[in-house]
Amino acid sequence: MVANKGKFAVVLLSGGLDSMVAGGLAREAGYHVLALTIDYNQRHRVELQAAAKVAAALNAMSHIVLPLDLTAFGGSALTADLEVPKGGVGSSIPITYVPARNTIFLSLAMGWAEVLEADAIYIGVNAVDYSGYPDCRPAFIAAFQSLANVATRQAIEGAPVEIVAPLISLSKAEIIAQGAALGVDYAATVSCYTADNEGAACGECDSCRIRRQGFFDAGIADPTRYRIKT
Amino acid sequence: MVANKGKFAVVLLSGGLDSMVAGGLAREAGYHVLALTIDYNQRHRVELQAAAKVAAALNAMSHIVLPLDLTAFGGSALTADLEVPKGGVGSSIPITYVPARNTIFLSLAMGWAEVLEADAIYIGVNAVDYSGYPDCRPAFIAAFQSLANVATRQAIEGAPVEIVAPLISLSKAEIIAQGAALGVDYAATVSCYTADNEGAACGECDSCRIRRQGFFDAGIADPTRYRIKT
Repeated sequence: MVANKGKFAVVLLSGGLDSMVAGGLAREAGYHVLALTIDYNQRHRVELQAAAKVAAALNAMSHIVLPLDLTAFGGSALTADLEVPKGGVGSSIPITYVPARNTIFLSLAMGWAEVLEADAIYIGVNAVDYSGYPDCRPAFIAAFQSLANVATRQAIEGAPVEIVAPLISLSKAEIIAQGAALGVDYAATVSCYTADNEGAACGECDSCRIRRQGFFDAGIADPTRYRIKT
Repeated sequence: MVANKGKFAVVLLSGGLDSMVAGGLAREAGYHVLALTIDYNQRHRVELQAAAKVAAALNAMSHIVLPLDLTAFGGSALTADLEVPKGGVGSSIPITYVPARNTIFLSLAMGWAEVLEADAIYIGVNAVDYSGYPDCRPAFIAAFQSLANVATRQAIEGAPVEIVAPLISLSKAEIIAQGAALGVDYAATVSCYTADNEGAACGECDSCRIRRQGFFDAGIADPTRYRIKT
């Protein structure tokens, strides 16, 4: 990017808790943050407003919100007219899984990183409390790094972008504790799949259940605004 | 997709010659064609009209033209305000290289393939006459296959999508000869980076030079309409 101006990282920001902590860790590691949010026409639109707040809180040098209408493909409760489950976290791949989402997001981040000559891409995937998603596992991140090692001009020139998934082996409580230690303000984030227009959470979808349990287990006050008492 | 109805392949169609031959080979191999074209806000917009003609010629069951504005990132003569070179094909990575384009396109194809439960993705990349692009090489395709083997629900269930790049080791003349043997009508395709609104080609950009030489070397009449005499 700009010579002798430090290290740069593209941070994939969803507006949720995990990606904000990932961004906080990028800053902690000395990176300037370039924030990338994909507007994939997701059901939970308020995420995008949360992402803008998070980018500002991370002091991002730039924040691109890129429209990419994945409802053209469908196949997920987040992008098609399917019901978001609220009965509790199950053991199989949930219907909220969006086909190839993290592959698509990392590819886009890699394209921007290449233009910027950024050093790293931070992604807040996590394999512990969400092991149902195939593209949140260490094997997936390792395979994407191998791809990045051959896919770009940066790779050809000997400096492939580094894929950093700092939360992948942490529990939700550990993630929340790490972010709290960095001073992250979780009130900016929205995790609920069916949050209302003001970002108030349902408290019942998988994402809400895992988040709420994480705050409880971490012994940290939960700043989430819930729209129903549960 | 639909049980006992045959094999399905997502074919990435640009509107150019190579992807039409790749699609023809998918049909020859017994696949039903699902055509995917990315409208990345490329300079050569007439490609998209050509892609529609090509999809029809391939008897595609469906054709999605997905908008994805890569000009948000810039960094290429095809997506930013940079001049398309017309001085001849050089030896380094050309400025027409779009950062991470094929990674992004294959990721999107993988997302749709997963929704459709398609068996294969066909992509018309070619390492011989375009070796300057890092994401047109066999090592890149192999790395993407390795990624596909872990990235999706299909992979978890033991049936990852197959990435097929049938032109990767062929010369442009060999590609043209293969397509001609399949009965491909190249008049539907547009390869020029600066084609006019009617699809007439400049005859001078790298893409035109390689295409024209390919028809010449294959000994096949070139149906391309050029807007200047060269």
